[in-house]
Amino acid sequence: MPAHVAAPSPRSRIARVPRRGVYDRATIDAILDESLVAHVGFAVDQQPYVIPMLVARIDDRVYVHGSTASRTVRKLAAGVPACLTTTLIDGVVLARSAFHHSMNYRSVVVLGTAALVEGADERATALEAFTEKLLPGRWAEVRTPNERELKGTRVLAMDLAEASAKVRDGGPADDEDDYGLDVWAGVVPLEMRAGAPLPDERLRAGIEPSAAVAGWAAGRR
Amino acid sequence: MPAHVAAPSPRSRIARVPRRGVYDRATIDAILDESLVAHVGFAVDQQPYVIPMLVARIDDRVYVHGSTASRTVRKLAAGVPACLTTTLIDGVVLARSAFHHSMNYRSVVVLGTAALVEGADERATALEAFTEKLLPGRWAEVRTPNERELKGTRVLAMDLAEASAKVRDGGPADDEDDYGLDVWAGVVPLEMRAGAPLPDERLRAGIEPSAAVAGWAAGRR
Repeated sequence: MPAHVAAPSPRSRIARVPRRGVYDRATIDAILDESLVAHVGFAVDQQPYVIPMLVARIDDRVYVHGSTASRTVRKLAAGVPACLTTTLIDGVVLARSAFHHSMNYRSVVVLGTAALVEGADERATALEAFTEKLLPGRWAEVRTPNERELKGTRVLAMDLAEASAKVRDGGPADDEDDYGLDVWAGVVPLEMRAGAPLPDERLRAGIEPSAAVAGWAAGRR
Repeated sequence: MPAHVAAPSPRSRIARVPRRGVYDRATIDAILDESLVAHVGFAVDQQPYVIPMLVARIDDRVYVHGSTASRTVRKLAAGVPACLTTTLIDGVVLARSAFHHSMNYRSVVVLGTAALVEGADERATALEAFTEKLLPGRWAEVRTPNERELKGTRVLAMDLAEASAKVRDGGPADDEDDYGLDVWAGVVPLEMRAGAPLPDERLRAGIEPSAAVAGWAAGRR
């Protein structure tokens, strides 16, 4: 079980089903590190937008990135309030009543403001982290970014100071009267799994998947 | 390939990599119907919040629900501008350069305002849709909601009038100079898969998973 840690701010506190709220960094970091995609929210003229983006964490910050031409990136870089949320789905919870059906999940919500990362070192470390997030060990195998590519890419960071997690696990919690019903109840686990690597149609003859590619895909099958 | 349909509004138009923008309802509906979770964005005092919620579509509306006590539900029911986004991850795209790494995905963004569903019939249909979304065929197997449960549940709907999809598929698109590199390139497909159903620890002896439970889990393995 995660350690008991208080919410970092009133607005980060899990209000609904508070026992599912988790605020320790080990739990938060593990969820962020397993999540490929974050849903990042920001508002333009009162209208919120929620955009999926690749996410990577380094120490106390989460990073997203995009093209210099991206509206999402330009809006976030302007320093508007933002919310970055990731959700891992772990299973479908089948109760004896429709009402108590649920999902097992682990989610993290990060509140704050995104900041444009300007330092060359932090930018380079973040770009490496994005590639490594997609596939551990990949950065060392590929051509690293050139000047033009670096110029066309913006990296944004949010601090984890106002982060919270919410976790549901375990079986259904039925009403006492319903345990006598003649209904199967339990959990169907769900997990993101990898298929066999599919070579690019222009892959040169004789190039096999590296150990990093083959091993990662096999480990997730 | 999806049919060519124009964006329903300027703010729904995919600005970044416009060839990935899709606006036909068949594509949008298929993505929504395959998504268990939507990330719903709304703002409170300028701060956006992005909250994961079970999503179900019926005809021209998407539905989410929650407890009467939920802050998210209360805020959305107040009629604030909202954004509902779902994302399906289909694979990791491994290019020869770090820059061209990507993900294959299908996402939908719905802009608009959530409305509290007040009509008893539409509410009942939506509650059935949530249970069926978790597991097709489940509604007929379980105890349906009683008066107390109905009173404690709010159903919210958003119209699909301002919906757009964004889809990336296929292999990496490398720079011409990079095709000669000695680097494996291609796609590692990713998919949400089910494990074997885990019975609730209080399941009565002799109750086996129904055909709906066993068949659905087996079909997703």
